[in-house]
Amino acid sequence: MSVAYAEPNQSPQDVVRQLLDTAKAEGRSSLTAPEAKQLCDLYEIPVPQEGLAKTADEAVKLAQGMGFPVVLKIVSPQILHKTEAGGVIVGVTTAEDVKAGFDTIMTRAKAYDASAELIGVQVQQMLKGGTEVIVGSITDPSFGKLVAFGLGGVLVEVLKDITFRLAPVTKEVALSMLDGIQAAEMLKGVRGGKPVDRDALANVIVNVSRLVNDVPEIVELDLNPVFAREDGATAADVRVVLDFEAKTARYRPNEEQILAKMNRIMQPDAVAVIGASAEDGKIGNSVMKNLINGGYKGGIYPIHPKADEILGYKAYKSVKDVPGTVDVAVFAIPAKFVAGALTEVGEKGIPGAVLIPSGFAETGNVEGQEELVAIARKYDIRLMGPNIYGFYYTPKNLCATFCTPFDVKGKAALSSQSGGIGMAIIGFSRSTKMGVSAIVGLGNKSDIDEDDLLTFFEHDDNTQVIAIHCEDLKDGRAFAEAAKRVSQKKPVVVLKAGRTSLGARAASSHTGALAGNDKIYEDVLKQSGVVRARSLQDLLQFARGIPVLPTPKGENVVIITGAGGSGVLLSDACADNGLSLMAMPADLDAAFRKFIPPFGAAGNPVDITGGEPPVTYQNTIRLGLEDERIHALILGYWHTIITPPMVFANKVIEVVNEMKAKGIHKPVVASLAGDVQVEEASDFLYQNGVVAYPYNTETPVAVLGAKYKWARAAGLL
Amino acid sequence: MSVAYAEPNQSPQDVVRQLLDTAKAEGRSSLTAPEAKQLCDLYEIPVPQEGLAKTADEAVKLAQGMGFPVVLKIVSPQILHKTEAGGVIVGVTTAEDVKAGFDTIMTRAKAYDASAELIGVQVQQMLKGGTEVIVGSITDPSFGKLVAFGLGGVLVEVLKDITFRLAPVTKEVALSMLDGIQAAEMLKGVRGGKPVDRDALANVIVNVSRLVNDVPEIVELDLNPVFAREDGATAADVRVVLDFEAKTARYRPNEEQILAKMNRIMQPDAVAVIGASAEDGKIGNSVMKNLINGGYKGGIYPIHPKADEILGYKAYKSVKDVPGTVDVAVFAIPAKFVAGALTEVGEKGIPGAVLIPSGFAETGNVEGQEELVAIARKYDIRLMGPNIYGFYYTPKNLCATFCTPFDVKGKAALSSQSGGIGMAIIGFSRSTKMGVSAIVGLGNKSDIDEDDLLTFFEHDDNTQVIAIHCEDLKDGRAFAEAAKRVSQKKPVVVLKAGRTSLGARAASSHTGALAGNDKIYEDVLKQSGVVRARSLQDLLQFARGIPVLPTPKGENVVIITGAGGSGVLLSDACADNGLSLMAMPADLDAAFRKFIPPFGAAGNPVDITGGEPPVTYQNTIRLGLEDERIHALILGYWHTIITPPMVFANKVIEVVNEMKAKGIHKPVVASLAGDVQVEEASDFLYQNGVVAYPYNTETPVAVLGAKYKWARAAGLL
Repeated sequence: MSVAYAEPNQSPQDVVRQLLDTAKAEGRSSLTAPEAKQLCDLYEIPVPQEGLAKTADEAVKLAQGMGFPVVLKIVSPQILHKTEAGGVIVGVTTAEDVKAGFDTIMTRAKAYDASAELIGVQVQQMLKGGTEVIVGSITDPSFGKLVAFGLGGVLVEVLKDITFRLAPVTKEVALSMLDGIQAAEMLKGVRGGKPVDRDALANVIVNVSRLVNDVPEIVELDLNPVFAREDGATAADVRVVLDFEAKTARYRPNEEQILAKMNRIMQPDAVAVIGASAEDGKIGNSVMKNLINGGYKGGIYPIHPKADEILGYKAYKSVKDVPGTVDVAVFAIPAKFVAGALTEVGEKGIPGAVLIPSGFAETGNVEGQEELVAIARKYDIRLMGPNIYGFYYTPKNLCATFCTPFDVKGKAALSSQSGGIGMAIIGFSRSTKMGVSAIVGLGNKSDIDEDDLLTFFEHDDNTQVIAIHCEDLKDGRAFAEAAKRVSQKKPVVVLKAGRTSLGARAASSHTGALAGNDKIYEDVLKQSGVVRARSLQDLLQFARGIPVLPTPKGENVVIITGAGGSGVLLSDACADNGLSLMAMPADLDAAFRKFIPPFGAAGNPVDITGGEPPVTYQNTIRLGLEDERIHALILGYWHTIITPPMVFANKVIEVVNEMKAKGIHKPVVASLAGDVQVEEASDFLYQNGVVAYPYNTETPVAVLGAKYKWARAAGLL
Repeated sequence: MSVAYAEPNQSPQDVVRQLLDTAKAEGRSSLTAPEAKQLCDLYEIPVPQEGLAKTADEAVKLAQGMGFPVVLKIVSPQILHKTEAGGVIVGVTTAEDVKAGFDTIMTRAKAYDASAELIGVQVQQMLKGGTEVIVGSITDPSFGKLVAFGLGGVLVEVLKDITFRLAPVTKEVALSMLDGIQAAEMLKGVRGGKPVDRDALANVIVNVSRLVNDVPEIVELDLNPVFAREDGATAADVRVVLDFEAKTARYRPNEEQILAKMNRIMQPDAVAVIGASAEDGKIGNSVMKNLINGGYKGGIYPIHPKADEILGYKAYKSVKDVPGTVDVAVFAIPAKFVAGALTEVGEKGIPGAVLIPSGFAETGNVEGQEELVAIARKYDIRLMGPNIYGFYYTPKNLCATFCTPFDVKGKAALSSQSGGIGMAIIGFSRSTKMGVSAIVGLGNKSDIDEDDLLTFFEHDDNTQVIAIHCEDLKDGRAFAEAAKRVSQKKPVVVLKAGRTSLGARAASSHTGALAGNDKIYEDVLKQSGVVRARSLQDLLQFARGIPVLPTPKGENVVIITGAGGSGVLLSDACADNGLSLMAMPADLDAAFRKFIPPFGAAGNPVDITGGEPPVTYQNTIRLGLEDERIHALILGYWHTIITPPMVFANKVIEVVNEMKAKGIHKPVVASLAGDVQVEEASDFLYQNGVVAYPYNTETPVAVLGAKYKWARAAGLL
């Protein structure tokens, strides 16, 4: 095994290339220790200093240069088992002992193998003290290069306390990783320990992330342990794993290219329906009816090999026969005919194909799907699907789907990887009157995926929140980049299914997708400003509630409650959702107390007590909205004869509207405890801008928490 | 400071008493190290061996007896700062070094203080190696003595990775503690480490729990660290905190006494309403109307100072004037009149008082409440409240409350500490048609609390599940004992509000209750077989669903789904709720495959795919119910034209009933994804024994998970 050494006038790139070439030529999938050390030196990743001493005096000089203690090791091509030969002395702390140690080692080595060539003694800086941490990098099939940080030893091994970020990272992101582990407090010094040098540690992370980003062939890298001291951080051991096989990149158009196509697909002026049918029960019939009955005003062109006319629209044998421009072709034909029809779509110059048919990758027909992708690339068509229900875009009254029509217009755009979840979105939206701008099925995601949708919705004025159900991300890197950009403007909510190992197994049996380590998703989604939904109900309720609530201008949340018991549960929910109950200033406390009975509770929650008339709710809510120190209100209502549910709801909206007229817009959510009339009151509140739920103290707070998470990620707080 | 030493013929109790008496006499609130060591010896808690050597030879003998390494320490009344005096040498490993060390220490001590009396050198076994753990005990105001176990160092300090049990514990419970921490794997040996001696460690825990149980004055105890080795466990440091102040015990009747009173209160043959009124809007009017309109068939006796008749019932000036027996008196008078009326209730020999009035401890009037308790104890009356809405007991058509009447009969008994939460229970129950046996308000819990209710419901054939909302437990010890007994027969679900630090603060401002450390509640509730609800919705949904589902006979859960996407989310939910997806046996897999399309997914979830007719659902569900290896089914439905929601629902109930007729009862839950018709289908399924939710993949699984948690705790699995 040879070792590449840097020549004085080589550039860092040259050195790296030479190291890789050597490893590749030798068929190795890892670097040797000296090679790894060279890389670390190039990227300013501190490793223990070392040097070769040929004499005892040289050894002393080296040791003094690097500082004590040092380790002495025999260097001889013939002596492989150094310790066995007595050729290693650790913990040498003085010049005297180095000198003596050099002689001892040489003597022992001679005694061990008289014929061995003794080149000298390696003097190596001995690391000790500080906190053991791990810095590393892995290559995720979806996200690409990730940099990882954790505490060494049991914390990472037993408790899996580790955090990931997309590489490369800035210093700021690297510093956020130090706070991103459960045991973050450890780094600040506990039990009399010293705090670590955060700056030095962050630099190690930054430099590792630069290295793996620069060198695609490094698929894994471990600095384990890194000794993080009060003054500096040094990697005691470096492991570098290489992979020279080139990966085929997924098609990744730029933002402009995405927009150009997506605008025409989502807001078409003319739609062709390939496989349109006059026969009830056929998918091609449902699509035609939905387009027509949905009220779509653009051109509708049924394509059918024999029919002259379908549901009153002139039919064509091929899309190529359609006069004029067509923006999108919806496919409602069996899988085996799709490739042929797609070629015609390409020849016609149609920019988008909505591939409803199943029978591709999800049933094992990977080749069939790859064939479609090849045709799409050849003709520059964007593909939605296959294996989808299609999509809705309500501003255009467009129901390009075989599912039931949908017409509740609003500001939430939703997408799902699965058809079943798509149907749940439709049912929930209709039932709760959640207005949507779009519902999109992505299915197998052969081409169009979440980052394309994000880019379209980013520029779509009809959309205020984007809620995504997915089981995998085909190109997590592209998604993260888009989400990071879009979430600065609009909230992005993601339900990542297959979170758990059980779930992940089901995901891979369902779509053939490799479900990633959930911790990676957790960290990368957060890094991208995404609000994560933990359940289907979370996704739906967040999508519904986020556009309804104004964006808070600060972190101070106040609970005003008629039911003390609700106050406690609402407080629990605040803690669960990362919300801060404002410490009530004395003057404000006094102001609230003026409105409530003397036995009402002080502080926050403001407990107005149960038997109060509507005016008490109004007075306290008005105060909460008017005082600039308060940024959001959570209301707890208790059904009584004195303040019945609809009276409460009306009075709340009255005061909220009174404040709006004054230009005061704060998020208000409510939990209603009472008999069944609280359901009507909750609906009324919700329709008027107060996110309210009956018999439920957790969901209103979770929705407010989601709004806060987004506002923080977007830098608005 | 004197030290108590055991005489040869003293009993252990005598020794302990003598230690305590000495400490008390000296006004100390802790034991000295030698005293603590004595206690440890008495309770077989291993501590380092030690002995006093007056000569170097004695020191060697001692060291050889306890084994190397040892620590040597000067013993001199005048030398308090031993280390400063050079009077401590650690890590002495040979007889030679002990000898030399003895002399060195004595010489140094003389040099340090020539006038000091040098008694000798303490030789102490030096502990090293093994895993550092903590064993301790605290005294909780509600639960009493608790024993704690955690890993030493950062794990317990930074990550708060610690577990509690009620003391005393059995060996089995002590062993469960070793598995009860997050980092449990550490004890099994990681990174080449040796596993700890579980038996020895469990013995330490058992012995600590015996000690604190035997000696009430020990309010805190810390063994920190305990070195847990491959062979044994030794406490390196012992800290014992004492409190000699006697605590006043809460009234704690035995099971028979509770039942005798609670049966009459909850199922009365005659009810007096103190403060009954004919005037609309008065609480005493609402109570009368609810009793009458609720259909209560027993005697109703309005008590009013002036009226002759109220709402058609003869009125009395005092309960003492009522002819015959009265079982319960419902109070609807202002706080200031309660004590007087309660005395009359006592004189009449009425066993129970339902104290609706507020204005007691919750408003700071603690004395007023204590007065009521004193009257109650004098006359042996059980008090419900004060500060409550009253209670419902549907089997008797009894609405002893001022809230809206309620008549949906069923098997769930619910209680709440807060009135607001009580109203939410009523509204939810009515809205979802959840049948209840009882709804009880406990308010300030001056007397009757959760363990009384548990005992009544345990013996109440009308109750199958007990769901409790509480903010504190006045007597957590009594609750835990009752819950442990009752949960063997019936599921006990608890929503503990004030879980989080934010929530706990609100709890204490609401009821003056000291909200405990949530980890203590978590562990003790689990130890007591309680199913914990994390939210109000959890409490309500568990109460509703648990009695509907048959008890599973094993852990094998199978998901059958039309929507692959639902399958993934349902799998996530299984992992979240501790459910085990059965590894599908080959023959069963083949049997399922016969019914589903070739591209349906194998294994578990069974993905029947979306376009299937009703018969595919039926065939696969029948197979799942018939095969004895499967113990529970989770269904994922996808709304299609081929199998509309109500068709699905009817077919499911058809096959479930077909199996019931054959004596097959398995829990079946369902998640319905689809348009709004899935709401009606879900209701129909629920009313027929299948716990079903629309647009929701998590709640059906959570309810099944709750049933499983109970079945495991009750030893049925």
